[in-house]
Amino acid sequence: MSVKYDYQRLERLGMPEAILCDGKHAEHLEQLLEELLARPEHPALFTRLHQQVFDTLAPHVATPLDYCRVSNTAILHGVLPQRTGSVAVVTAGTSDLRVAMEASRTLEFTGIPHTLIADVGVAGVWRLLERIDEIRSHDVVIVVAGMDAALASVLGGLVDKCIIGVPTSIGYGVAAGGNTALNAMLASCGQGVTVTNIDNGFGAACAAIRILNAINSQVTT
Amino acid sequence: MSVKYDYQRLERLGMPEAILCDGKHAEHLEQLLEELLARPEHPALFTRLHQQVFDTLAPHVATPLDYCRVSNTAILHGVLPQRTGSVAVVTAGTSDLRVAMEASRTLEFTGIPHTLIADVGVAGVWRLLERIDEIRSHDVVIVVAGMDAALASVLGGLVDKCIIGVPTSIGYGVAAGGNTALNAMLASCGQGVTVTNIDNGFGAACAAIRILNAINSQVTT
Amino acid sequence: MSVKYDYQRLERLGMPEAILCDGKHAEHLEQLLEELLARPEHPALFTRLHQQVFDTLAPHVATPLDYCRVSNTAILHGVLPQRTGSVAVVTAGTSDLRVAMEASRTLEFTGIPHTLIADVGVAGVWRLLERIDEIRSHDVVIVVAGMDAALASVLGGLVDKCIIGVPTSIGYGVAAGGNTALNAMLASCGQGVTVTNIDNGFGAACAAIRILNAINSQVTT
Amino acid sequence: MSVKYDYQRLERLGMPEAILCDGKHAEHLEQLLEELLARPEHPALFTRLHQQVFDTLAPHVATPLDYCRVSNTAILHGVLPQRTGSVAVVTAGTSDLRVAMEASRTLEFTGIPHTLIADVGVAGVWRLLERIDEIRSHDVVIVVAGMDAALASVLGGLVDKCIIGVPTSIGYGVAAGGNTALNAMLASCGQGVTVTNIDNGFGAACAAIRILNAINSQVTT
Amino acid sequence: MSVKYDYQRLERLGMPEAILCDGKHAEHLEQLLEELLARPEHPALFTRLHQQVFDTLAPHVATPLDYCRVSNTAILHGVLPQRTGSVAVVTAGTSDLRVAMEASRTLEFTGIPHTLIADVGVAGVWRLLERIDEIRSHDVVIVVAGMDAALASVLGGLVDKCIIGVPTSIGYGVAAGGNTALNAMLASCGQGVTVTNIDNGFGAACAAIRILNAINSQVTT
Amino acid sequence: MSVKYDYQRLERLGMPEAILCDGKHAEHLEQLLEELLARPEHPALFTRLHQQVFDTLAPHVATPLDYCRVSNTAILHGVLPQRTGSVAVVTAGTSDLRVAMEASRTLEFTGIPHTLIADVGVAGVWRLLERIDEIRSHDVVIVVAGMDAALASVLGGLVDKCIIGVPTSIGYGVAAGGNTALNAMLASCGQGVTVTNIDNGFGAACAAIRILNAINSQVTT
Amino acid sequence: MSVKYDYQRLERLGMPEAILCDGKHAEHLEQLLEELLARPEHPALFTRLHQQVFDTLAPHVATPLDYCRVSNTAILHGVLPQRTGSVAVVTAGTSDLRVAMEASRTLEFTGIPHTLIADVGVAGVWRLLERIDEIRSHDVVIVVAGMDAALASVLGGLVDKCIIGVPTSIGYGVAAGGNTALNAMLASCGQGVTVTNIDNGFGAACAAIRILNAINSQVTT
Amino acid sequence: MSVKYDYQRLERLGMPEAILCDGKHAEHLEQLLEELLARPEHPALFTRLHQQVFDTLAPHVATPLDYCRVSNTAILHGVLPQRTGSVAVVTAGTSDLRVAMEASRTLEFTGIPHTLIADVGVAGVWRLLERIDEIRSHDVVIVVAGMDAALASVLGGLVDKCIIGVPTSIGYGVAAGGNTALNAMLASCGQGVTVTNIDNGFGAACAAIRILNAINSQVTT
Repeated sequence: MSVKYDYQRLERLGMPEAILCDGKHAEHLEQLLEELLARPEHPALFTRLHQQVFDTLAPHVATPLDYCRVSNTAILHGVLPQRTGSVAVVTAGTSDLRVAMEASRTLEFTGIPHTLIADVGVAGVWRLLERIDEIRSHDVVIVVAGMDAALASVLGGLVDKCIIGVPTSIGYGVAAGGNTALNAMLASCGQGVTVTNIDNGFGAACAAIRILNAINSQVTT
Repeated sequence: MSVKYDYQRLERLGMPEAILCDGKHAEHLEQLLEELLARPEHPALFTRLHQQVFDTLAPHVATPLDYCRVSNTAILHGVLPQRTGSVAVVTAGTSDLRVAMEASRTLEFTGIPHTLIADVGVAGVWRLLERIDEIRSHDVVIVVAGMDAALASVLGGLVDKCIIGVPTSIGYGVAAGGNTALNAMLASCGQGVTVTNIDNGFGAACAAIRILNAINSQVTT
Repeated sequence: MSVKYDYQRLERLGMPEAILCDGKHAEHLEQLLEELLARPEHPALFTRLHQQVFDTLAPHVATPLDYCRVSNTAILHGVLPQRTGSVAVVTAGTSDLRVAMEASRTLEFTGIPHTLIADVGVAGVWRLLERIDEIRSHDVVIVVAGMDAALASVLGGLVDKCIIGVPTSIGYGVAAGGNTALNAMLASCGQGVTVTNIDNGFGAACAAIRILNAINSQVTT
Repeated sequence: MSVKYDYQRLERLGMPEAILCDGKHAEHLEQLLEELLARPEHPALFTRLHQQVFDTLAPHVATPLDYCRVSNTAILHGVLPQRTGSVAVVTAGTSDLRVAMEASRTLEFTGIPHTLIADVGVAGVWRLLERIDEIRSHDVVIVVAGMDAALASVLGGLVDKCIIGVPTSIGYGVAAGGNTALNAMLASCGQGVTVTNIDNGFGAACAAIRILNAINSQVTT
Repeated sequence: MSVKYDYQRLERLGMPEAILCDGKHAEHLEQLLEELLARPEHPALFTRLHQQVFDTLAPHVATPLDYCRVSNTAILHGVLPQRTGSVAVVTAGTSDLRVAMEASRTLEFTGIPHTLIADVGVAGVWRLLERIDEIRSHDVVIVVAGMDAALASVLGGLVDKCIIGVPTSIGYGVAAGGNTALNAMLASCGQGVTVTNIDNGFGAACAAIRILNAINSQVTT
Repeated sequence: MSVKYDYQRLERLGMPEAILCDGKHAEHLEQLLEELLARPEHPALFTRLHQQVFDTLAPHVATPLDYCRVSNTAILHGVLPQRTGSVAVVTAGTSDLRVAMEASRTLEFTGIPHTLIADVGVAGVWRLLERIDEIRSHDVVIVVAGMDAALASVLGGLVDKCIIGVPTSIGYGVAAGGNTALNAMLASCGQGVTVTNIDNGFGAACAAIRILNAINSQVTT
Repeated sequence: MSVKYDYQRLERLGMPEAILCDGKHAEHLEQLLEELLARPEHPALFTRLHQQVFDTLAPHVATPLDYCRVSNTAILHGVLPQRTGSVAVVTAGTSDLRVAMEASRTLEFTGIPHTLIADVGVAGVWRLLERIDEIRSHDVVIVVAGMDAALASVLGGLVDKCIIGVPTSIGYGVAAGGNTALNAMLASCGQGVTVTNIDNGFGAACAAIRILNAINSQVTT
Repeated sequence: MSVKYDYQRLERLGMPEAILCDGKHAEHLEQLLEELLARPEHPALFTRLHQQVFDTLAPHVATPLDYCRVSNTAILHGVLPQRTGSVAVVTAGTSDLRVAMEASRTLEFTGIPHTLIADVGVAGVWRLLERIDEIRSHDVVIVVAGMDAALASVLGGLVDKCIIGVPTSIGYGVAAGGNTALNAMLASCGQGVTVTNIDNGFGAACAAIRILNAINSQVTT
């Protein structure tokens, strides 16, 4: 009973299937890796591949992987050709980097230019204002924030482009698990902000790809 | 203590402030209406203006309003100039129309061409497949669905454009209030689907406007 | 079985017992009103006295009340002597006024100078920055906000005085009931912000009174 | 204080008691194993026997067990005689296999013919449509899905036989723990779908046995 | 924008689409009624048609309806031909009748023989034991219970046929809304009990229809 | 900063303070143990002293303890003098023994005669009926059950003495953590059943002690 | 389909079945009233009979009822013979009276001497201490409290008799619905306090009856 | 991508940024430590630095830290100059010390005189009354309590100064995680008590600093 990889998704949706490693048995993962190793024409992205699982993979399947221990992602067979469009990935705090890097790596893998702007949370709103023109210059802004996630609301009032909120599960007490950040983003007074699942940096990057798909189909027609 | 209307928001964000009528005292609402009546150069949109509140407004402020009793929206001083781009508003069932119409009216108000495609829920998946090419032809797809909200997941696998999910509060038992639909959309296996607050058709339309802003700024540069 | 009013609380805590009218039978309320009417030396404050209950009170007990229909409060026998110190009551939006006015009326009743600064929510952060020096000039800042309650976080980083957050139950979907605002304020990245129960403008004013008690006992010693 | 095994349940309900190993002390488990080893006429099924517990069992009780490390089940003294009827066990993704295999092993143990059809989730709805006739050919369909569990709704509209939904606890954020999948299945627009507890593959197989009991009692009368 | 009735569902799934009236606008409902009145060959079932909505329908569409004010259901154009098989609808208390009658009316509409056995809750377990043989004589048992829903567990151990639990929203405090009954049924120690959404008597009847479909397809082959 | 033991509680409440070890630092625990070792006239009970903590205690404080690894309790300096009255501790399943033993050990420590009756859950209601007269012969019945906790409801209808429900955290999915069992017991149709916190066998025993206190004060007056 | 009254419950459990009127159809209620009117030897208690339902009952069934509009209870055919034992019903605030009176009326109906001690909440702990000896003099103490329900904890440390906590649903924000009071009572640091469902004054009185049953069976043997 | 420390926060808010170590990668933490080691003029506070993380730090960055293993805090480069004002940190039980010490260490670091008064929970209310005058003598009272958190309510009625509640996550069952304590404090009948996030001793100390800021600015003007 092996993992069935969807080789047509790239063509169909403009983004490849990523392998979510969480919850998969190590043996199923190794089988899939062996299958993909034999198909170098199919670059592949692995998400939520935790260090302790990565460390148990057999060397012949682990070695070819470009692994990032902050975002727990791995890339196989290089990245896709570069596309037009640009994305800003903005974080409120240092602890949100883990998730922001998942978005960043997904964009890197799919060939999309992007900038990571970290630690501009609203407890120091002037830090954000100093960089607001830079943020505004992108087609899509991904906002990664936990706790009260207030950054999404403030940005929603300052930027007229697409804003995708990614709540993170950092923090403790009522913040633990990320539901407060999720609900605060959904209830955001910054109109037109949309939201992904908690910690889903990959999903935010995919949403950005969908937007760039729309831009590119318009531009080219 | 009157409502402070943000006259600059249209210029700043490409979308005007809408007046959320829920939770506002009738007298505050009437004050604002009088203020706006005197400024015909500022078209205005009112959301969640429930029939029973609308019926109590003084005739001289109510009569000029273009009121829609399905979506509980009102438009004052006509709509904004037409823009380029197109949006599909897709609903799973008849009961989702209330919310879909809020999105539709917001798009109408902001001059954005759009199509309403109703009653294509996945309990009859062939009804959806019959119309999938029509849906794919738009820049942005707004999916309005309650209960299990499975329509968002199925569309996410069939369409490569921007998909914005709007969970609705229809149904009873575990569906009541819309949290099940919200969480199902957030957990959607259709990668890159983003989500608004429950019943927030207005917010989904604003997110679509942000995307069209991005498309247009690219097209014109 | 009548309501037992705590006549000593003013002396003991520096703030009188307020009569929370919610959940009390109208006949119990009338009995207490008759008792207090006979004691003009005891000014009294009534909270959450909803219009429909107020309208059913017998005229001889209702007429002497100074009733406010926005905050649902009533004051009997005038206000307490003025004290030193000052409080700013700041709201994110117009819909938060109901709760802000409860705080304001409690401060008015207890003789505390205060300023109401409404509609400075972070979706237009420059509106807030324009008034930040005015806000900073008070001893205590009460922040009243619903939905994402991001205003508390932004103020927490800009003001070095006591900040008391009052989450409100405005909004719909995930905002409904005020839990999102409550949790966002508790998880606030603005360090040292403390919080009251949802919609508890009265409680926030009492907390401010406790702080002014501390200031005054220091100043006078 | 030993575990009391219900030797009559097979006769009474047409399905034997299974030993749920979760939450039982290892010593109680070993006592029961020794008791059952001495009764080879009583085939027995153990569920949720996690690998780390299995590995600590004394060899003389562990060795006779037919253990499956994907489903964490063990079978002792072989399986029951084959019955008529057939069941399809359908999964949305690879990560649902753990639970689907628990259902499959329970069916195997009770002598019921069944087919496992994996990885037909609705993010690629054509994969499902390709196999729909095969699925329809069974008396009972067990649908195992996590996250948004949309597969249950789509199948509910395509198949007229008994559909039993088993939500799984895979995923993260709002999917974590399986409540979203559970509620989505309960709110399913596919009418007449019933649901078991989260991850309860064993319970779904038992429900299928109850249905086959009903079929067989009708057929034979 | 009218309601789209699925005329093929009866043929496809062996059960007709029922019109869930909750959440539909009265005008949409009247439109659909007029459409169906013109098609007497299509018997139709309406669920959750609350008395106050029924009372506002125009007489020419209301009069032909066979309306039941306990279950809030209406039947148009008579019932479907009788089928083989039998169902017991069992309730714990009198307050569960509203939901049990929805199941009962759905079975009546679809031509399925059934028996209603009320008020056999486990606070008086001997009342249940007196009727257990009668309950066992049916192909399917629908258990309707609120509060602690313990009846489902006790029946699960006494009956070897299909048991479908319907939690009800009766009661107050922790019972209010039906989640306790729902979770207790899902966690039932009576193995193989499956569950529908809260108050979903219609869904339980549909699940019974699916089971009888399976029985009948076996019997006739 | 040491733990302050309440040496007067036995006299005041008829039950000694028990030391809840969960959440205490090992060093605080050792300090208290040394203090109590020096006071042999004060028998002491320790609850929730998990094996891994017990194993790290210094031998000179651990050795004098009478430790039970099923209930995670320890007794120091023997038990209190025997009292009159009797308590039945009844469990639904084997996995509830851990909690039932905590109640049993507390009763043993306080000198109260009691009987442990295990594994009489309602999935086999005749097992319960066989022992009902034995259960009825006690002054107080403690019911320990997880999952759906239906045993409390059935007993509530069969026994006229005090029934104290202890929900347990066994099980998975909706049962995990014990909230379903707690709420089912609180919503029990067996009138007059009262409930303790989840897994609180100690608290149930204390409640039984309070009842026996009342009985004894009546009997002796 | 009428309500089935359990005429044997008094003899079996020492307390009669009470008719919970919530959720019952008015016609079912009237049928039962007529049946009971014809059996004057069976005193009966009705709970949660809300004023608006009582006002719609036919005069010939309503007039014989002794109705209490604070507790929403009604008594038919007088009260039961007086028993020995005594109960204190203690409330934190005036708003808890509604529930306390339900307990009080149930005790009155069953012939049990009791005292109502109101408004001794811990915000003024000296008021409680003044009456603590009076409270201690009863066999059972029922504590009725909402909001933070701290009264149960304080009493738990001061009284050695049976303490039954009844959380109430008074208050707003996090207090609304009574879950905070319920959980605070369950987590009470006053060991051996047991708890009923929210607002269940009737259930607390029944628990007290069970305790007095135990006392009386001891005293008489 | 390093942590960006806010060197200006002390001047701006009268309290320095503290480094929340939870959720930060060890390498990011070490980078920041090295940066701060080079700036001895900037005393720094680290919170939630768990023992197992502290133990893995390189000796040259760990050795200069003044680490406290009860509160998991570390101080670098000594404490700030002493300020005027005083704070009482009061705990209900021994298990709350971990959080109380975080508050205490933050106050120590910022040069604020304070007293720790432990183990005065309301299960023994006389212990609290014995020390109430001592508690009243401070400007601010921080109340640290878990489970039912009743101490905050009792203190709210006895003390007229600022009371800041810190709910803790100690306990099990409904107490686990601290939400019950949080909600009980928010619903407190002691008017004017404000609350921080669960376990947020640091935040409570910051709130106290804000109050002392207000006092000092008044005193000096």
